Amino acid sequence: MPDFQLDPRIAGDTVPVAEFALSDLRLMNDRRFPWLVLVPRRAGMSEIIDLNEADRTALLGEVLQVSEALRAATACDKLNVGALGNIVRQLHVHVVARFESDAAWPGPVWGSGAAIPYAVGEVESLVGQLTAAGIA
Amino acid sequence: MPDFQLDPRIAGDTVPVAEFALSDLRLMNDRRFPWLVLVPRRAGMSEIIDLNEADRTALLGEVLQVSEALRAATACDKLNVGALGNIVRQLHVHVVARFESDAAWPGPVWGSGAAIPYAVGEVESLVGQLTAAGIA
Repeated sequence: MPDFQLDPRIAGDTVPVAEFALSDLRLMNDRRFPWLVLVPRRAGMSEIIDLNEADRTALLGEVLQVSEALRAATACDKLNVGALGNIVRQLHVHVVARFESDAAWPGPVWGSGAAIPYAVGEVESLVGQLTAAGIA
Repeated sequence: MPDFQLDPRIAGDTVPVAEFALSDLRLMNDRRFPWLVLVPRRAGMSEIIDLNEADRTALLGEVLQVSEALRAATACDKLNVGALGNIVRQLHVHVVARFESDAAWPGPVWGSGAAIPYAVGEVESLVGQLTAAGIA
């Protein structure tokens, strides 16, 4: 098995936020939605059930930690948590803060059109809020 | 807190498959996708992080069990696992078998148009395959 390398599409669509024990935490560069992605640093995985038991448990813990912090930081109406991977097969889990006023509501964020990149300073502001909420 | 009652929209869109320790397992009545839904029998919950720690762990275990059986039964190209709840707030987790040839690929199943109900006997056939794969 080769070493883990972040999928280039994920790398291009996101910015790094934190490194957890198992996963890299990254933020989608799309100001329409506060949208985090956890990528376990394990090569060759595409499904949660491909992970061994310890890693499955660790991933759940990281998803829950990110969910708590994202809800606290954004006061969102709903969290959307998903592992899809239809386009990028490298295992990754989305944790998205949804608002009844957002651009895709009540539909899913996946397939909801072109991302709108953050303006200068906006990523730092959101990451600061997430850090204050205990994400890293 | 009132007793748990299955959301009427979930009840209308799905058929019962099994009862796990925590969750009811139901099948979406949409022959376009082998699409299972786990509904924890806990009143007033809308997020995974609303569950207590034991229930979070139990839910993950049930999601993994369903994922293994669904992949084994369908030989799908990809699993899609998601907890959204933008339309129905009652906590529920989707586990969907996806195929590169299916009606929504590579987009998500959520928001992919009107369900096509199973024909007579098709549900029983799929549930039989799931049972053989260890789902219940």
